[in-house]
Amino acid sequence: MDIKFIERKDKKAKPEQDNLGFGRYFTDYMFEMDYSPEQGWINPTIKPYGPISIDPSTMVLHYGQSVFEGLKVYLSKKNEVILFRPYKNIERLNKSNARMCIPEMDESFVMHAITELIKVDKDWIPTAEGTSLYIRPFVFASDASVGVRPSNTYKFMVILSPVGAYYPEGFNPVKIYVEQFYVRAVRGGIGGAKTAGNYAASIKAQAEAKKKGFSQVLWLDGVEQKYIEEVGTMNVFFKINNEVITPELNDSILNGVTRDSVIQLLKDIEYKVTERRVSIEEIIEAQEKGELEEVFGTGTAAVISPVGEMWLGDKKMVINDGSVGEVSLRIYNLLTKIQTGQIEDKHNWTVKI
Amino acid sequence: MDIKFIERKDKKAKPEQDNLGFGRYFTDYMFEMDYSPEQGWINPTIKPYGPISIDPSTMVLHYGQSVFEGLKVYLSKKNEVILFRPYKNIERLNKSNARMCIPEMDESFVMHAITELIKVDKDWIPTAEGTSLYIRPFVFASDASVGVRPSNTYKFMVILSPVGAYYPEGFNPVKIYVEQFYVRAVRGGIGGAKTAGNYAASIKAQAEAKKKGFSQVLWLDGVEQKYIEEVGTMNVFFKINNEVITPELNDSILNGVTRDSVIQLLKDIEYKVTERRVSIEEIIEAQEKGELEEVFGTGTAAVISPVGEMWLGDKKMVINDGSVGEVSLRIYNLLTKIQTGQIEDKHNWTVKI
Repeated sequence: MDIKFIERKDKKAKPEQDNLGFGRYFTDYMFEMDYSPEQGWINPTIKPYGPISIDPSTMVLHYGQSVFEGLKVYLSKKNEVILFRPYKNIERLNKSNARMCIPEMDESFVMHAITELIKVDKDWIPTAEGTSLYIRPFVFASDASVGVRPSNTYKFMVILSPVGAYYPEGFNPVKIYVEQFYVRAVRGGIGGAKTAGNYAASIKAQAEAKKKGFSQVLWLDGVEQKYIEEVGTMNVFFKINNEVITPELNDSILNGVTRDSVIQLLKDIEYKVTERRVSIEEIIEAQEKGELEEVFGTGTAAVISPVGEMWLGDKKMVINDGSVGEVSLRIYNLLTKIQTGQIEDKHNWTVKI
Repeated sequence: MDIKFIERKDKKAKPEQDNLGFGRYFTDYMFEMDYSPEQGWINPTIKPYGPISIDPSTMVLHYGQSVFEGLKVYLSKKNEVILFRPYKNIERLNKSNARMCIPEMDESFVMHAITELIKVDKDWIPTAEGTSLYIRPFVFASDASVGVRPSNTYKFMVILSPVGAYYPEGFNPVKIYVEQFYVRAVRGGIGGAKTAGNYAASIKAQAEAKKKGFSQVLWLDGVEQKYIEEVGTMNVFFKINNEVITPELNDSILNGVTRDSVIQLLKDIEYKVTERRVSIEEIIEAQEKGELEEVFGTGTAAVISPVGEMWLGDKKMVINDGSVGEVSLRIYNLLTKIQTGQIEDKHNWTVKI
């Protein structure tokens, strides 16, 4: 299937690289294709980035049947265009599709579409330290009907956004709040899929935590509100007594690509790393015994987000004196250097375009 | 605040009244208004129904921050335009807004907007038995940004759809399936709000049940998967030993306007009606003892949906010999006659335009 290309006349002005933020600017082009039950995925097109026209009854606006992905492309010092584990994201896109009743996509074609889009927008990849071009593939239900059912038609798009360093003031630990009231997801639900509803379910807790001065909430499981699941929109790791523990995957935890990479890198540097259920009580106990050495979140946006303080109600727990831990820093450096082509990529995670 | 009116040149052809279905046709006009943090809700406009233009990064497509409502307007035999309990829906819209971090709306202005829109589209209210004009108010996050946070800007719209009789072949009992794997909502989550994510969370279970020949799933609670919450997208009632029981409201059950009306009507006709937690075991036990007399769902679309068969795995439970129960039918008749102005409305539920 050939991708149709519609060229734009004038290119947009590029934003300053020192104030990119996250997901605020978009490039010159976007990718679009449509699904109909009769024809499958059709009309793949790269066209000028701009508004789309949808009917007000379009299902996604009402019932949230949608999925998305997020990955980054970097420009190395040798001018190579480097994608990090894109096949993992595309594989997850199809897993999310299955959960949300969205038709499966041809993974190699999605990779092709992403690659071609990056090629036409290559000059948008920022070069400053810590910056990258964020890739947002997404699919949404496009039937113009308000009956509650899976849509018959869908739209798949890819948009690109130059994003800034996640830590403009340096790699500093954040304060997180253990959420004991609000629940993000539950077993049997959609928490394991990268779909709109999970983010909708998280915003009130996140907004309330932010007002209290926290940067993220620590999510507990929906059944017992006892076991740790995620932190904000990231996976989470705890270093206790020289062992690194992360919640084992279940259908209410997102299978993070960064999470998977961090587990591998920890093994590479010969750290003991365990995936298992971990309760908030266990973490509190470890902290009280002085055995909780590090806590960090992992995700595409921040890569590694070290935690300096964790609050459970009024109980404040300081982690590693509020400084970045040794393992957090080491993994952050390893991962970002692989992503930007500065060190050897022995797992063949990167794909050069 | 005055509503701007943009007239359309040509009116659309109206669909046949005997094949309207649900939510497939829309009227000549729609209502639209926008929110910005600086100006609040501005630019209320009634304009020709048609596509809206949104940026591909528009938050609702990615993170599902949205709410909606659903209510109906009827044309009585005396040519009166009758709304059913609209203030309840508008009040619930604001409750959903609060849960989803969407700014509060002026309820009397929303009522005014709905009323004015109905006036310009009055000739779209179908007149055939069982038909009505469905009103869909909805709000969605309209920031053009893919950062995960509450949006700063929003769009509020109202669209209208002439809808058919929910039971084109008569008021027949449906087969439902007790869902023991998938979960729609959990305490601490967003299940009590009328927001996209809950419907997204329900479609896979509903689609699988449909494939097996069921018309709805019976949802159990997210914590213990033991207590009954809803049926499909409706509230649910059980008549056991001459007592009518419905699950008491909690933050994972939608506070249905039809549910509330049915409870009142049951009291009016001197039926014992109880709102309390009710487990699936209790229902099975009642059925085995021959005491489960009726089961029915309640909602705006179907009004009353009698259940004839309920399946738990391979266990089939037939209710009232698969026929419509006496109470289901009586309440259906009462409610639809109040809604269409055929009998006295002693609770002042209806609003005539």
